[in-house]
Amino acid sequence: MSSRNTADDRLSIGLVETGFESVRNALDAMLLSDPQFSAQVTAIWRGHTVVDLVGGPDLAENSVTGVFSATKGVAAAVIGLLLQRGFFELDKPVASYWPEFAARDKAQITVRQVLSHRAGLVGIDERFAVDELIDSSRAAAKLAETAPQWQPGATHGYHGITIGIFMEELTRRLTGRSLQEIYESEIRAPRGIDFYLGLPESEEPRFREVLPPAPSPTEAAELSARAPATDSIQALAFNVFHGELAPTAGEMGPNNRRMRASGFSSINGIGSARGLAGVYGAVLGGPNAKPLLSEDTIEQMSREQSVGADRVLVLPTSFAIVYMKPNPRLEFGSYRAFGHDGAGGVIAFADPIHELAFGYVPMPMQLPGGADPKGVELSRLVRACIRRLR
Amino acid sequence: MSSRNTADDRLSIGLVETGFESVRNALDAMLLSDPQFSAQVTAIWRGHTVVDLVGGPDLAENSVTGVFSATKGVAAAVIGLLLQRGFFELDKPVASYWPEFAARDKAQITVRQVLSHRAGLVGIDERFAVDELIDSSRAAAKLAETAPQWQPGATHGYHGITIGIFMEELTRRLTGRSLQEIYESEIRAPRGIDFYLGLPESEEPRFREVLPPAPSPTEAAELSARAPATDSIQALAFNVFHGELAPTAGEMGPNNRRMRASGFSSINGIGSARGLAGVYGAVLGGPNAKPLLSEDTIEQMSREQSVGADRVLVLPTSFAIVYMKPNPRLEFGSYRAFGHDGAGGVIAFADPIHELAFGYVPMPMQLPGGADPKGVELSRLVRACIRRLR
Amino acid sequence: MSSRNTADDRLSIGLVETGFESVRNALDAMLLSDPQFSAQVTAIWRGHTVVDLVGGPDLAENSVTGVFSATKGVAAAVIGLLLQRGFFELDKPVASYWPEFAARDKAQITVRQVLSHRAGLVGIDERFAVDELIDSSRAAAKLAETAPQWQPGATHGYHGITIGIFMEELTRRLTGRSLQEIYESEIRAPRGIDFYLGLPESEEPRFREVLPPAPSPTEAAELSARAPATDSIQALAFNVFHGELAPTAGEMGPNNRRMRASGFSSINGIGSARGLAGVYGAVLGGPNAKPLLSEDTIEQMSREQSVGADRVLVLPTSFAIVYMKPNPRLEFGSYRAFGHDGAGGVIAFADPIHELAFGYVPMPMQLPGGADPKGVELSRLVRACIRRLR
Repeated sequence: MSSRNTADDRLSIGLVETGFESVRNALDAMLLSDPQFSAQVTAIWRGHTVVDLVGGPDLAENSVTGVFSATKGVAAAVIGLLLQRGFFELDKPVASYWPEFAARDKAQITVRQVLSHRAGLVGIDERFAVDELIDSSRAAAKLAETAPQWQPGATHGYHGITIGIFMEELTRRLTGRSLQEIYESEIRAPRGIDFYLGLPESEEPRFREVLPPAPSPTEAAELSARAPATDSIQALAFNVFHGELAPTAGEMGPNNRRMRASGFSSINGIGSARGLAGVYGAVLGGPNAKPLLSEDTIEQMSREQSVGADRVLVLPTSFAIVYMKPNPRLEFGSYRAFGHDGAGGVIAFADPIHELAFGYVPMPMQLPGGADPKGVELSRLVRACIRRLR
Repeated sequence: MSSRNTADDRLSIGLVETGFESVRNALDAMLLSDPQFSAQVTAIWRGHTVVDLVGGPDLAENSVTGVFSATKGVAAAVIGLLLQRGFFELDKPVASYWPEFAARDKAQITVRQVLSHRAGLVGIDERFAVDELIDSSRAAAKLAETAPQWQPGATHGYHGITIGIFMEELTRRLTGRSLQEIYESEIRAPRGIDFYLGLPESEEPRFREVLPPAPSPTEAAELSARAPATDSIQALAFNVFHGELAPTAGEMGPNNRRMRASGFSSINGIGSARGLAGVYGAVLGGPNAKPLLSEDTIEQMSREQSVGADRVLVLPTSFAIVYMKPNPRLEFGSYRAFGHDGAGGVIAFADPIHELAFGYVPMPMQLPGGADPKGVELSRLVRACIRRLR
Repeated sequence: MSSRNTADDRLSIGLVETGFESVRNALDAMLLSDPQFSAQVTAIWRGHTVVDLVGGPDLAENSVTGVFSATKGVAAAVIGLLLQRGFFELDKPVASYWPEFAARDKAQITVRQVLSHRAGLVGIDERFAVDELIDSSRAAAKLAETAPQWQPGATHGYHGITIGIFMEELTRRLTGRSLQEIYESEIRAPRGIDFYLGLPESEEPRFREVLPPAPSPTEAAELSARAPATDSIQALAFNVFHGELAPTAGEMGPNNRRMRASGFSSINGIGSARGLAGVYGAVLGGPNAKPLLSEDTIEQMSREQSVGADRVLVLPTSFAIVYMKPNPRLEFGSYRAFGHDGAGGVIAFADPIHELAFGYVPMPMQLPGGADPKGVELSRLVRACIRRLR
């Protein structure tokens, strides 16, 4: 094992196991080439932490911050637990667990469809208020009364906001408890994982505000040209009602204390790279830890369901049950990997082929949005190290 | 309200309500920049005409002309009426209403599939004769004997000619009447809408021949390079048998008096922008007019069914039941809008979010084919005006 | 009929019927422009050979060589025979014929899905050994124990290796005989077709080793950039386990005597262009030969099933039952054509519209992989000649 506290404060600090030095070297090169760039990166191999680094001006070893949609991959572990315990079946209609959902011709929509971005229920005409996301049963009641935007199953498109509402309402209907409670009591607390669905007041001092991206003029022009019209399906899906969505998601985002206290499972989880890797490491288990999800459950949850041109993101995307899958645009792991990225560049995943759990958190938000290519490159290096060691 | 009869005959004439002046300004700029360009544009907001303009050398205020596939959006209103009245169900097999259709392994093809370009029955090997399109029961008999080109439902591809045959034959089988008769007696005549499925002799003096596009040498070269091989599925779907399809669709097109007298519902409707807006305005209704289609019927008809790479057009397209939906390539309206474009650049639609009905008819035919970007831009301006006024 | 034995040994030799001279001219131009290029091309029209040419330094009139995936189109003729004889139904579960296949949540996967690249079962984590491909019942046993990589039916992706395993195991389960035996006794031997699934020792002297492509530096850089990561779904599907796949497929490929003796139906058929055209000609029949497959069977086998972005090849592909279909990227024939290409540039197909069977075999392997554009161009010329003669 190698570990260091470097004299050059532009370099990363932390732990790197023998054989993984290339990961530290690559991260250090990234830090040196951009003095504004900060990042945390953690890799757990066979239950053992082999990389745990942090560097740059805006993230410390114990910092936690908002990871946006990477939250969905954390919430997915709860959904996996409920599947494993027989609380629901993927091919049953949602309405069999949540009768009100049958309204507006939605009686046949399956749990598989809502959890793989195929239901066509990406938002509501009048948009959700922040309070409805915090108490997501209110948002769920409105969604239940809404007609799908496309024939369920006809295509897939990122349900960036609503998939969390589905996960939370299903969990309540199936268990009588909130998704956040189950996560806290059954996943986070027993393992001391540094990732929260609902950041306690006690952890607030460690919280770092998400910093917006610093686009070059060219990037800024591209972003502006790509901004969706307010009457588009994109604006509907991202819950935008008055003009532009702030890069940090504004009032809905993690910089709003009420949102991070809620831990809304679509976009408001708070934690560190170590915390994200910890969740995926718990899912996989290791030599001294029973896996949270069985091989069979992982198979059900990580099988690709939706693939190709995304009706909302207008990009090729790939989704399993809640989880994202690697695809040619975003090869974050092997064909067996499952994880999720976040708006600011976060990427975290489990990779059964490599027995790897991985978390990466950059700061400020990185362009072009979604998994930061730097994080994908660090993942590639970790996997190459593992192949050499095996 | 503002209205004018300008001294400069290069500018548009007609009506523009206060708050919609930007639409007139944009149209006038288009007219000034291209002296060969003519257009009609009409917008109806909450049942009230707020824009009704015409300009350029080749279209007058009372002109009617051929709108090619925008006809399908007019015929769709009849299909919506039949759905609303319970004449058919979208998920029933076509063969349950039209038994001969079961031949050649087509017993399971549903009405939903044939009306959303998914049936894979885009043409017949020997091509349709003009007389078979005029008496479309003859074309229907040939289609019934034809095997699908792809596994029904496997993908979608524009059934540019055959969807009208399906609509007409289904209407005859379900009601004993022709689609054109129902349109005339239940939609057009009671409202005096200036759009005809079957142009009467009495209106012939107002008819303007469709003028072919005037491509630049570059555009001409591109068009020629894109011309489909005569043994391709494109040539099959566009009913091309001897070499190239004329830009005005030749004998099959609206410049043939027999075709416009037939009002063949795929491509031979004749009318004005005002007429097209009138049809969509009737569908939506308004303060003083009961909607032709109920909210529930509109939901059924306007839900997106087919989306992505079109097997025939080799472009991303989006279809509801008969209607086109806005998509990233062609954002003619909000995510709730439904309408149809036509080969020469026509675009017409209803937009429930904006309580808007819109029609645009250019002359000569505009490149690159399908909705003219100028018409899409005028639609965008109308929607922006409505947002400001609300 | 015209035939010649040219003095200029850079030109092709062989037979060209009157009306097909443009094909010979085009081939000769190709040969003259690239002295390293060799090719065989054969066209059979209405059961009569109208083009049968060979030229270049590395292929003689009686040469046979490896055609890689074009083998699948030959094996498909056996599958068509079994379908025609009622041995199976396309919409029955594979497990109804092969009970072990039901493991790992695969009980519902249909024959249609496995034979149109939709099953999501593109490989096994540990990769197949060469001996398991030679005795494909061993590979089949491993596939039966494997979970699908995507939800069956959710998308399609080229099962480049496994589709042959499926075809062979199904044939054994349905008939008790091997696919190769049925091909030999019912298709090849009775017609003396020069294409082998299992090249006999006696034909070895005629075998020409497949020569790897000779990329330009630019092409080499592109190929290297496109090389799939060893943990990608591409590497899984191409059975790559130790680094790069050799262009000639290495040990798995036709240059390995054991593989060409096996005639493994995914990639190890051996023959000539004349042999490939002969197989498709047998399928279609002619004035003096009953078609191997009836019109109805051809309809079932050649109907497009899977179309669009291929999850494995990351290209738009189109598949019927085993057969490839022409698509905008690769218009090798009319919309009714069905055939298959091979890694080195081979293309062979039947085209019912043109009553044509066609085979093309280049040497060395041509870039960019899949059907050589030169072969597609020769096919286009043959079809144009036929149109003029009709």
